[in-house]
Amino acid sequence: MKRVGFIGLGIMGKPMAKNLLKKEYQLTVYNRSRPPIVELERLGARAANSSREVAESSDIVITMLPDSPDVEQVVLGSNGVSSGIKTDSILIDMSTISPITTKKIAGHLTSLGVDMLDAPVSGGEKGAIEATLSIMVGGKTEVFEECLEIFQALGKNIVHVGDVGMGQVAKACNQIVVALTLEAVGEALVLGYKAGVDPELIIKALSGGAARCWALEVRAPNVLDRNFKPGFKVRLHHKDLGIALATGKEFGVPLPITSLVHEMFGALRVAGRGDLDHSSIITLLEDLAKTEVRKKAPT
Amino acid sequence: MKRVGFIGLGIMGKPMAKNLLKKEYQLTVYNRSRPPIVELERLGARAANSSREVAESSDIVITMLPDSPDVEQVVLGSNGVSSGIKTDSILIDMSTISPITTKKIAGHLTSLGVDMLDAPVSGGEKGAIEATLSIMVGGKTEVFEECLEIFQALGKNIVHVGDVGMGQVAKACNQIVVALTLEAVGEALVLGYKAGVDPELIIKALSGGAARCWALEVRAPNVLDRNFKPGFKVRLHHKDLGIALATGKEFGVPLPITSLVHEMFGALRVAGRGDLDHSSIITLLEDLAKTEVRKKAPT
Repeated sequence: MKRVGFIGLGIMGKPMAKNLLKKEYQLTVYNRSRPPIVELERLGARAANSSREVAESSDIVITMLPDSPDVEQVVLGSNGVSSGIKTDSILIDMSTISPITTKKIAGHLTSLGVDMLDAPVSGGEKGAIEATLSIMVGGKTEVFEECLEIFQALGKNIVHVGDVGMGQVAKACNQIVVALTLEAVGEALVLGYKAGVDPELIIKALSGGAARCWALEVRAPNVLDRNFKPGFKVRLHHKDLGIALATGKEFGVPLPITSLVHEMFGALRVAGRGDLDHSSIITLLEDLAKTEVRKKAPT
Repeated sequence: MKRVGFIGLGIMGKPMAKNLLKKEYQLTVYNRSRPPIVELERLGARAANSSREVAESSDIVITMLPDSPDVEQVVLGSNGVSSGIKTDSILIDMSTISPITTKKIAGHLTSLGVDMLDAPVSGGEKGAIEATLSIMVGGKTEVFEECLEIFQALGKNIVHVGDVGMGQVAKACNQIVVALTLEAVGEALVLGYKAGVDPELIIKALSGGAARCWALEVRAPNVLDRNFKPGFKVRLHHKDLGIALATGKEFGVPLPITSLVHEMFGALRVAGRGDLDHSSIITLLEDLAKTEVRKKAPT
């Protein structure tokens, strides 16, 4: 069995690493802060002192980090993955970052004889814990196939979408649809509520037809409970739409509504709501309408 | 069994009237043009020469018309429903119109001792034919219950959402979510396609997670076939978002993204695409990006 390295043990990375241990992968882990390393060590992982050390003792290195500069630093920086990785190894970056950065990193690794897959995920902390993540993979077919068992230990809807970088493009598309459907459901709920319809009945009436979507079925009930615990944080979705817009600029694709919703997530951060769940986009609409959508009081 | 009248035998009304005949309702029908009346007559309906005549021979009158002025004219105009309807009858308006117009008409009917339900539908021609419409009903509970069997002959997800007018409010909410998810899927498909991802793989990758929605699962495959046969026409969705915005104005609910997508549907009409399916909103994005999303050629 391949030796796997895992760098980045945050909200997503830690449960993913645990799922690999459950499948009995020989795992070496590293993280900027110490506590999650200790926790994984207790479960049987080997602790490393740097990204370089992880790379030195692994055949496949997985990174799960917040943003493009983090991945660039961890892979290409001093004491980074590229300084320790062996020819014929594989780097799987499961972070959500820019496809342009992805291609740049992949180019460096190619010169070292190392293959790269970009494999961003969707499904949040819950999906990471339950190993039900959607995984969008870019890279060579034979490398994808070599890593498929690892992906199957982490997720369910695993789609090889194209060459390296294309996983990140698909993830950008995913984040556009999620953001815009949250905004759509937000506008619908505020309108219906302030016009006098019980919001639970709005959800019920709309779920049966062409308006059905994850935002309505999974997030709207939390909104009625005023539960904005993430889930997925505003500031991360703001970052992801920034990636989508940069990708649009790179490939010549104007994205009019995405750019506005990106601004709205920015406004939420300015308002001090960056660490709330992304469904809190509805609070901006509530501010405009001077109302707050809540469950109807029992009569 | 109650005698039912049906006014408005268009794309939606005609199959709905047929479904009532199948359930053996004694049906009197009227329509501005003659051919659908003749067709329904052959199936056992009684033909009337005016909306007034329909009202004179029915206990429950159903209207299914294009827009607010049509319903106002047919119900309150000369030779209209209100000139022939008897005390204790019921008007069910299943058109999608303004909740403000609905309340005005209901007020007039109350003075005649007639109850009104607003019961707009979602599900399109297919839902009308297969009797699987979603129906959002506003009006008194006892009147709703009296008419429930009729609704069950026409649809599946039948929700009583509140007092008269609230059915139209719920429908406005529905049309907001449908329009904005179509735009969301449009921006995602154009970005992903032009950046180099096979669009069928975008649909597959996004359908498994938080981006899942009707627009992606039902409409996006038609887009890849460049099939913009309605379905639901751009000009009707444009009208419906106009109703949503007017409702927002009435109740003090700013709808920033709905207003922009309303403008986009307006732009489609200017471009001569008003009779295409509403999923053709993607063509505006394609115009901007100078591309056209198509299935990848088989390799």
